[in-house]
Amino acid sequence: MKNEMISHIGIAVRNLEDGITRYALLTGNQKPFITEVPDQKVKVAMFSPGDENNSGSRIELLAPTSSESPIAKFLDKRGEGLHHICIYVDDIEKKLEELKKSGAKLIDKTPRIGAEGNKVAFIHPTSSNGVLVELEQWRSHS
Amino acid sequence: MKNEMISHIGIAVRNLEDGITRYALLTGNQKPFITEVPDQKVKVAMFSPGDENNSGSRIELLAPTSSESPIAKFLDKRGEGLHHICIYVDDIEKKLEELKKSGAKLIDKTPRIGAEGNKVAFIHPTSSNGVLVELEQWRSHS
Repeated sequence: MKNEMISHIGIAVRNLEDGITRYALLTGNQKPFITEVPDQKVKVAMFSPGDENNSGSRIELLAPTSSESPIAKFLDKRGEGLHHICIYVDDIEKKLEELKKSGAKLIDKTPRIGAEGNKVAFIHPTSSNGVLVELEQWRSHS
Repeated sequence: MKNEMISHIGIAVRNLEDGITRYALLTGNQKPFITEVPDQKVKVAMFSPGDENNSGSRIELLAPTSSESPIAKFLDKRGEGLHHICIYVDDIEKKLEELKKSGAKLIDKTPRIGAEGNKVAFIHPTSSNGVLVELEQWRSHS
């Protein structure tokens, strides 16, 4: 059984280094894990709570690597700020089915593979009170 | 030492019941804890990850109880959506001092007591990449 509900919060930033300086101070985590997601054309700085593992709810700063990135488009339209939240689910296919039945608008009708190799799917903000919600298939991080 | 970094994410909603229906399905938590914060003129539905305790990073839906509520003003201006994130810190006075030294703009120059009895302080979004950040003094939830 999962012991977290939030996988991460995604924050759109223009300049990754600037964001890292600020969030290192805010979170007390001086060494975020840096990675790139070519698929989304973003560079990501992940701030985890623990020192040893990657199991707690993270803050992720997302900076575009191209003007074609969805994050570049978000920044143009809305400026820097909270972009999405990612919630763990036990069974993503079942959850998408339940959401569809409830009338929710799905961006991804079937899961795709996310940056960390887990199944993910996005829900349209109109079906989650203005919040872009990503669902992620929970799996043991042990 | 704290084992979480995110205390909670606050989401501004117009209608708490509607938000609860959606987030109960998204999170799988059917019984959010409902409370009121008269100070902020909001009713809050807290979705915690665990069954037994309140220790994991939560999703909080915030609905105004008056048009004077800061959340009512946010809704008028921005509509429903992500409102703030709350980050745990070990020593809030020390952190505010560090932030001040770094040039950050603080909404609360000194901590005040939050809804759950912990010391809290808000940072201005211009100093945290467009995100309204609340800091919360960590204390053991055991």
